[in-house]
Amino acid sequence: MSSPRWIVPFAEGSKEQRDLLGGKGANVAEMTRVLGADKVPGGFTITTEACVAYMAAGDAPDGLDEQVGTALAALEEQTGKRLGDAEDPLLVSVRSGARESMPGMLDTVLNLGLNDDSVEGLAARTENPRFAWDSYRRFVQMYANVVKGVPGERIEQEIAALKKDRGVKLDTELDVDALRALVETFKGIYREATGEDFPLDPREQLDGAIRAVFDSWTGERAVTYRRLNRIPDDWGTAVNVQRMVFGNKGETSGSGVAFSRDEVTGAPEPSGDFLPNAQGEDVVSGVRNTRDISELEEWLPEVYVELLDVLSRLEAHYLDMQDVEFTVEEGELFMLQTRDAKRPAQAAVRFAVDAVAEGLMDPRVALLTIDAEGLDALLHPTFDPSAEYAVLAKGVAASPGAAQGAIVFTADEAIAAEADGREVILVRPFTEAEDVGGFHAAKGILTSEGGKASHAALVARGMGRPAVTGASSLEIDLAAQTVRVGETTLGVGDHIAIDGSTGAITTEEVPVVEPEVSEAFLRVLEWADAARLLGVRANADSPEDAERARGFGAQGIGLCRTEHMFLGERQPLMAAVILAADRAGRDEALAELRPLQQEDFEGLFEAMIGLPVTIRLLDPPLHEFLPHKADVEKRLERARAEGSDEVGELQRTFDRVSALQETNPMLGTRGVRLGILYPEIYMMQVDAIFAASTAVHERTGTAPHLEIMIPLVDYERELDFMRRVVTERAQAAGLKHGDDYLVGTMIELPRACFLADQIAEFADFFSFGTNDLTQTALGFSRDDIEGKILGRYIETKILDRSPFETLDSPGVGQMLRMGAWLGRTTQADLKLGVCGEHGGDPDSIDFFHHSGIDYVSCSPYRVPVARVAAAQAAVRAANA
Amino acid sequence: MSSPRWIVPFAEGSKEQRDLLGGKGANVAEMTRVLGADKVPGGFTITTEACVAYMAAGDAPDGLDEQVGTALAALEEQTGKRLGDAEDPLLVSVRSGARESMPGMLDTVLNLGLNDDSVEGLAARTENPRFAWDSYRRFVQMYANVVKGVPGERIEQEIAALKKDRGVKLDTELDVDALRALVETFKGIYREATGEDFPLDPREQLDGAIRAVFDSWTGERAVTYRRLNRIPDDWGTAVNVQRMVFGNKGETSGSGVAFSRDEVTGAPEPSGDFLPNAQGEDVVSGVRNTRDISELEEWLPEVYVELLDVLSRLEAHYLDMQDVEFTVEEGELFMLQTRDAKRPAQAAVRFAVDAVAEGLMDPRVALLTIDAEGLDALLHPTFDPSAEYAVLAKGVAASPGAAQGAIVFTADEAIAAEADGREVILVRPFTEAEDVGGFHAAKGILTSEGGKASHAALVARGMGRPAVTGASSLEIDLAAQTVRVGETTLGVGDHIAIDGSTGAITTEEVPVVEPEVSEAFLRVLEWADAARLLGVRANADSPEDAERARGFGAQGIGLCRTEHMFLGERQPLMAAVILAADRAGRDEALAELRPLQQEDFEGLFEAMIGLPVTIRLLDPPLHEFLPHKADVEKRLERARAEGSDEVGELQRTFDRVSALQETNPMLGTRGVRLGILYPEIYMMQVDAIFAASTAVHERTGTAPHLEIMIPLVDYERELDFMRRVVTERAQAAGLKHGDDYLVGTMIELPRACFLADQIAEFADFFSFGTNDLTQTALGFSRDDIEGKILGRYIETKILDRSPFETLDSPGVGQMLRMGAWLGRTTQADLKLGVCGEHGGDPDSIDFFHHSGIDYVSCSPYRVPVARVAAAQAAVRAANA
Repeated sequence: MSSPRWIVPFAEGSKEQRDLLGGKGANVAEMTRVLGADKVPGGFTITTEACVAYMAAGDAPDGLDEQVGTALAALEEQTGKRLGDAEDPLLVSVRSGARESMPGMLDTVLNLGLNDDSVEGLAARTENPRFAWDSYRRFVQMYANVVKGVPGERIEQEIAALKKDRGVKLDTELDVDALRALVETFKGIYREATGEDFPLDPREQLDGAIRAVFDSWTGERAVTYRRLNRIPDDWGTAVNVQRMVFGNKGETSGSGVAFSRDEVTGAPEPSGDFLPNAQGEDVVSGVRNTRDISELEEWLPEVYVELLDVLSRLEAHYLDMQDVEFTVEEGELFMLQTRDAKRPAQAAVRFAVDAVAEGLMDPRVALLTIDAEGLDALLHPTFDPSAEYAVLAKGVAASPGAAQGAIVFTADEAIAAEADGREVILVRPFTEAEDVGGFHAAKGILTSEGGKASHAALVARGMGRPAVTGASSLEIDLAAQTVRVGETTLGVGDHIAIDGSTGAITTEEVPVVEPEVSEAFLRVLEWADAARLLGVRANADSPEDAERARGFGAQGIGLCRTEHMFLGERQPLMAAVILAADRAGRDEALAELRPLQQEDFEGLFEAMIGLPVTIRLLDPPLHEFLPHKADVEKRLERARAEGSDEVGELQRTFDRVSALQETNPMLGTRGVRLGILYPEIYMMQVDAIFAASTAVHERTGTAPHLEIMIPLVDYERELDFMRRVVTERAQAAGLKHGDDYLVGTMIELPRACFLADQIAEFADFFSFGTNDLTQTALGFSRDDIEGKILGRYIETKILDRSPFETLDSPGVGQMLRMGAWLGRTTQADLKLGVCGEHGGDPDSIDFFHHSGIDYVSCSPYRVPVARVAAAQAAVRAANA
Repeated sequence: MSSPRWIVPFAEGSKEQRDLLGGKGANVAEMTRVLGADKVPGGFTITTEACVAYMAAGDAPDGLDEQVGTALAALEEQTGKRLGDAEDPLLVSVRSGARESMPGMLDTVLNLGLNDDSVEGLAARTENPRFAWDSYRRFVQMYANVVKGVPGERIEQEIAALKKDRGVKLDTELDVDALRALVETFKGIYREATGEDFPLDPREQLDGAIRAVFDSWTGERAVTYRRLNRIPDDWGTAVNVQRMVFGNKGETSGSGVAFSRDEVTGAPEPSGDFLPNAQGEDVVSGVRNTRDISELEEWLPEVYVELLDVLSRLEAHYLDMQDVEFTVEEGELFMLQTRDAKRPAQAAVRFAVDAVAEGLMDPRVALLTIDAEGLDALLHPTFDPSAEYAVLAKGVAASPGAAQGAIVFTADEAIAAEADGREVILVRPFTEAEDVGGFHAAKGILTSEGGKASHAALVARGMGRPAVTGASSLEIDLAAQTVRVGETTLGVGDHIAIDGSTGAITTEEVPVVEPEVSEAFLRVLEWADAARLLGVRANADSPEDAERARGFGAQGIGLCRTEHMFLGERQPLMAAVILAADRAGRDEALAELRPLQQEDFEGLFEAMIGLPVTIRLLDPPLHEFLPHKADVEKRLERARAEGSDEVGELQRTFDRVSALQETNPMLGTRGVRLGILYPEIYMMQVDAIFAASTAVHERTGTAPHLEIMIPLVDYERELDFMRRVVTERAQAAGLKHGDDYLVGTMIELPRACFLADQIAEFADFFSFGTNDLTQTALGFSRDDIEGKILGRYIETKILDRSPFETLDSPGVGQMLRMGAWLGRTTQADLKLGVCGEHGGDPDSIDFFHHSGIDYVSCSPYRVPVARVAAAQAAVRAANA
């Protein structure tokens, strides 16, 4: 009777066999297949099917023992060594390896095959008896503990007692005799705990270890982990048995790590380190000074040549730059591991361009080797990486780029400083809409509260201003105008520097490195544009932002937030609109705002000639344009005390501010609700837009592509109402729907996703506002959650990152798809965009690619990232 | 060639033919069918199909004219009168009537058939030439204007000129001669405007009016209305031609209105009014003193008997109490209209019970005759309807019941007053969680802000405390402790009375009528329980509420909000928990709270022995248990100024309050997020619940059915985390899952609806929190929206009522159904409830009945309403 095949030697497997061989087994098999069986320490994998059969039977399945014997014999044959040999023993590691990496399982038994005889052989070959005995001691200890469950503390007690006895402190101070004694002691403990002698027969050791791996699959910790991570119990685990190689067998042995190209620049020569006569852990531990990989050429020229060859073959096979670990055992090169190399953006770009030039891969494949997110770093100045400085504090790397200047605490001071030509950093606990003028004027923003999705972070990224947020060790006292960090206290005018790419904060002057968009990067962007299907637009509110976005390749403006046009010097006018006693007063103030708005729009349209511009009508609650209630109250009290004649007006302002106060502004009187309550504000905006369009058309001969966007729509009738207002004003301005302008809406509320078919009756386009959709769908206020809850949620594994950073695809993502699908049931060619932070996030972009979205819109500085990410999504989809 | 049948005489149609005959035509046909053709003024309906054919052809379809002729001849035959007859003319009305009532369409042409001859006949028969000529004048005017589009102002000018000329002010002062002159003038205007003579041929008049009705279907106003209301253009409208009858043809003529039973009490004798020798409009205008319907018996005994018979037949046919209009023309009774009678709750209940006793209908049908919403009024005291008092102001009728007492402005004052045995009304601009203690102590609540779904309204309804909210004419100055309304200023201790069923506010002492749950009401509730499939539970937090709920028939507690247990005298302890410097301090404060909580739960469980109790763990943000930031700041400033040694502690409180401040508390650190940040708080609650359960079990021999509910879950892992905490504490307490307790969750976030299948893996039940689900799905903050936006939205027809009052079924409702369906894909028998205001709303209950929900939970006082509404839903569904 022939039993199933329970074992696959490394040389016969491949990476596609993950289900059968587990992740680890499939990987080592793949490397063996690429490099040949003699370049990877040999071994075999006992399949997950064997584990499943073991679990079913409660014992090793028929034929497994024989097949282990056969595989072991083949390994001995291949290596010319025998397990337990007293001269030059074969030693093996035994490792578990499920389909997915799984904490809570038996991980590794090393040095299996050592016994009282073979330890001497190892000592002789390595000329290092201490190493040999220490290895034996560790093996017995590990075997007793992880295979047989002998309590670890029982063993540790003995080590501690022995150290005390010998008068030494460290394990490494124990000599060969002491280690010999420990092995004997451990064997005694083993006997006491298990009722059996410690197995000296290597085959018995091996069988014990294999069973222990199988048993660990049903251990309590593994079961719990699987339940939490929804891994089926019936997958089972594979067991990998692999020959151990030693880099410390003398002067022709050694260990090292290498990158197939320069790990910093990506230049086409390998980089790395090695150590002669040493094991892998010595290379990374930093105890001994490593040598540069280039010196390997002198020392072992043949090995060096072979390593270069191996690196090329690995690159060609894995189609990416590689990062390897290797060991040289008595002049023979063994590759222990290879993986795609983590590298900085410039190296990734360089590799991609070189690899294509070398014919290694085509541009579409090369695009996939780049971490799109990392490209952001290439677009901003940073602290010189070689600079040394004392870090004052660390915060969240909220908006990339380095900046320095004198501390100011208010937007007004920042604006004044800019007028004087002084460079300042705006420092605040958190920021609000009224601080935005200060963002323009300051070189950088620093806050003690809020995370990557706080107001400060969003606005700073949108403008490309460096920002560090949530630096919680900063105690900012606005009243006293001081920042305290531990012992240090800083005040207005003190120097401070921030790096928004790393979150570092310092009081020192730090040299800053300017970014450079390299030829290679431009090449990559060209490939990306050829490959991608998603359009990429930018969120921009000013001609400068629009020009920058266009420079970065934006194909239009996907979101122009008009509220920024009401701030700064316009704020008093907007406040007059809101404080007006009646419609007539409001109309008068609006009439003053109109020409200013028109001017803003003209600048924007000229910067985007030939491209579409999506303009969102006023969105935020009106109280954002008024002073704080507490401030007005104080001024009112003072005026009352002084009997000032300002009391009346201050009282009126106070009443209005109080009336506009909201418990949950996010869910309050904003968006289209404002448009319906005060149509005259939206009318003024629309009039200014149309007048600007006409003026630019006359001046340039080209009509702008206007897309008027109504925010926060819940009900189709809201959109119908506003669409009629827009249409009426357009007719008055002599503009034609379709040719001159479109009317669409933000889809940013869960209800709108559910009723998108009805809303689409009145929309020429949808733009998914995924920031607000995330807030409402999850009931998560961005401002309140990121600082307080996110850390705890990541710690407890409820989340792995902020839903404001990468779209929550199972929840918010499905709502978006529902909205997209329903919208297109009404209008098959409905234009669909995404504005909001997720539009610049590579993982989210991949999701949008699969959701029928036409374009994403992100901050100008993220446009290149989005172009590459969109291309990657398209290539991956085509490959799938 | 035979053409289709374009006309249906009233006697041949029925109410099922709404699509063909329109609403009006189907109704009059039904009444004719029931009462016979001689009891309803005869006529016929030109079908909607005729209108459709007319629109297609642009002219009257083949055969229509002949069929009108035939129908008209039949009508003349039936009535013994002829159109245009100079002796006793037949006059008809022509009315449009689409499937749905549709403003913007041609409504009515009356008195058609009058011309220079027949007007004299009418004058003779009515012995009232002025009436006849005024009717003719009106007909010419109406025909010119609505049928031929002659501008109304052109006609009005002539009337004005004539009045000036005759030196009179009112139309009614114009005598026969003047009216004759007007008719001639109008004919002149008609000729001038249309180029034709005014048609004196009645048949020509009729054809013109019919065409005008058809044309009005495609008029601009009607088209716009249909677009807004999604009424298909191709429905078309029907045209109803009906004989006019006159109650003013002398002493054996008259008009009246009648209810088939007493309109106030429901007692089984008709009520109503009539006027001899008068038309219907005279009865309702109040110009002449009407007579009680009982007097009809003396005046025209045969007509009276006939009317009684008609009323019985109508009741038997429509299976409801009827409200009719009738006219007696020369001793002959004609029924003009009948409809189900609007009536107060006690009458509705009385009718239902009597109708069943009389064998008129069975209880399931009788249930449908009751307006469930109205029953609420039977459960609360009200101002005596006969009392006279000066209304100071009106607010929103937020929580039914009348209350009066002395004004207080804070919860503390209310509590102090209660201790002294004084009755007070709590008056505030709006209320918050910390005011809840005052709700218990006060007799009623009055606020100047917020609507039916404001905090004050919700809490007051939950407790059954009368409340009037949003009384915006009240200017409440908390600092000055005054309420100003126009000229009146009230202060602490001044008397005030409110009626939460009507919204009335007065400073007078008003007699109050106590409610009485009548035998009849109890009977109705019994029927309801037999008919309904939905369970009804109550939201209750205290033993008193629980007992009241049980008294009203609640089948358990669907929502016990534990936060109320942290208020009042417990607040300092809860504040200590929150302000504790570390975990140890927090644990200490929690240990003090635990026995108090246990006591609360014991009381609750004893009140609900044998029934399930769903306990929601702490939900609101922690800052609700701390003093206001502004208050702490003031105290801190004062302490600093005085050099008080309280500065340190106040500073610590201030810092903590500041740190807990949230921009959008609704979307912030609350619900399960608190449980994950501070598991010790939830643990304390769970320990107290389990200890109380054990104690009650020991005491009573019956174990409570505990359902522990985790609020605000987004991610299944949140629930998994908390479920494990609960399970662990249960094991420690020796309780068994299933037998002793269940663990479930609120579904109140859109994400949870989308991922309900995954969440259901860890839930024994779901309870849909439709209040918060509405807030998040719509992005509508209840507190902010109801006051500011709702009115404008209803005015602009975006909404017809608050989504917090009746569930937004297309949006929020579909999310709920998605959640219910997905939850049951994981667990087919998952228990599903609804807590939140909608659980007591009849329309929403009907939706829940069709959504697979097992039970609704509402405030104790709404339980009877919910029982009846649930029964109605079941009966309607069975009939459908």
